[in-house]
Amino acid sequence: MGLRWNRVVIEAADPARLGRWWAEVLGYPIMHEEHGELMIGPDLDLPCIYFTPAHADKAGKNRLHLDLSPTDQEAEVERLLDMGARHIDIGQGDVGWVVLADPEGNEFCVLQSRGED
Amino acid sequence: MGLRWNRVVIEAADPARLGRWWAEVLGYPIMHEEHGELMIGPDLDLPCIYFTPAHADKAGKNRLHLDLSPTDQEAEVERLLDMGARHIDIGQGDVGWVVLADPEGNEFCVLQSRGED
Repeated sequence: MGLRWNRVVIEAADPARLGRWWAEVLGYPIMHEEHGELMIGPDLDLPCIYFTPAHADKAGKNRLHLDLSPTDQEAEVERLLDMGARHIDIGQGDVGWVVLADPEGNEFCVLQSRGED
Repeated sequence: MGLRWNRVVIEAADPARLGRWWAEVLGYPIMHEEHGELMIGPDLDLPCIYFTPAHADKAGKNRLHLDLSPTDQEAEVERLLDMGARHIDIGQGDVGWVVLADPEGNEFCVLQSRGED
């Protein structure tokens, strides 16, 4: 294929700090860091996550967000809250996934437990 | 690892239509479709892209976007424009990548040619 999905780019007030936070969340190594930009990912051949400086404040709910799949939802949500994530209400109601925001307010979801890999 | 990055979720006015557009862009199969939601991806063990109904119009530039890596940037940009993408100016200036918007206005970048796989 002539076109490959290479990465998700997240604009951040503090890309180096937010990128390190997400690296810890996902257990990803820091693959590249330069001029305050930071890339994390499991492997350079797979989609990575790239943090770059934002030129504006976050306004409203993001139109794109990440979904995370836990082996143990309750334990992972607890770990994320300890790390500085917070619960948010985006009108999701009573659903099986948990909606959190990262330290810069970016919404993401922790899906139902998938069981052990 | 107890937490796996599972997918990017894109809220869309017409998720089935936009998902099919992106499936064609990336050469991905449609992995799941239900209640107007649609998932595309290379493999269920890798991050997928999930399209779900938006509850609001797109407002301003997205804080998250996708970067695509082409074997031939010029040819791929031409193909994307033929498919309905359009050039946009987000103040990128004179850079090596090309900034486009998908049919719902979501910004994405086509990076410099990486050469043949």
